Amino acid sequence: MEKETRRKFLTTTAVLGAGVAASAMPFQDKKIKNQVIHHVFFWLKNPSSKEDLNKLIAGLRTLEKIETVRKIHVGVPASTEVRPVVDNTFSASEILFFDDLAGQKTYQDHPIHLKFIEDCSSLWEKVIVYDVIDA
Amino acid sequence: MEKETRRKFLTTTAVLGAGVAASAMPFQDKKIKNQVIHHVFFWLKNPSSKEDLNKLIAGLRTLEKIETVRKIHVGVPASTEVRPVVDNTFSASEILFFDDLAGQKTYQDHPIHLKFIEDCSSLWEKVIVYDVIDA
Repeated sequence: MEKETRRKFLTTTAVLGAGVAASAMPFQDKKIKNQVIHHVFFWLKNPSSKEDLNKLIAGLRTLEKIETVRKIHVGVPASTEVRPVVDNTFSASEILFFDDLAGQKTYQDHPIHLKFIEDCSSLWEKVIVYDVIDA
Repeated sequence: MEKETRRKFLTTTAVLGAGVAASAMPFQDKKIKNQVIHHVFFWLKNPSSKEDLNKLIAGLRTLEKIETVRKIHVGVPASTEVRPVVDNTFSASEILFFDDLAGQKTYQDHPIHLKFIEDCSSLWEKVIVYDVIDA
């Protein structure tokens, strides 16, 4: 192997190692010490309004631009089996991942988040927030 | 570049491409069509019992062995700012990611899940399940 090729090969192998670890370790997310998972459920005032739901979802999607948001899932109830313990009455949900408590605080005070609240808070009648840290 | 080296280099570069995409796209998870996120909150009968909490957490950790569980987060309330909308009264939480509704159903009926319920259900007084699919 000539030197330049070997250097490239070693570099790519090193990164490859990281890539393989990522794909082969589905539970790696929980290794991020102090990671905060912020899960918010929204109940619309007009739960049958597709327009209101779309507006809320569009608003939630703006939150991914906040620099401390590592991952985002904007969702609606899944059609899993109905059981007494399942609450499928919410209209939409956001799950945000932060590296730590400081990241979550930055998000709370961020102009994009405040704009979302200003634009969309008239749409919902109830919100529940659960903040989780790895056990 | 000799042939064998070049072949390896191209292979690693291809995988490297995937690795870079994974690390540069923090929101890629939401691209999994039909993904189901199953978030369960548990309230212990004896919320001050560290022993009961540890038993519940150990039980929740067994769930990652179920083959349709793609990712798992076992957690407790984070110490974020206290606000009226924040519910931090739960004792523990599990977040499970499935590729689809069928994966969630397999989990529900799986012997490891049934054993967890058998071993741990006497510990909790309340459970709320939220099943979310990407909007």
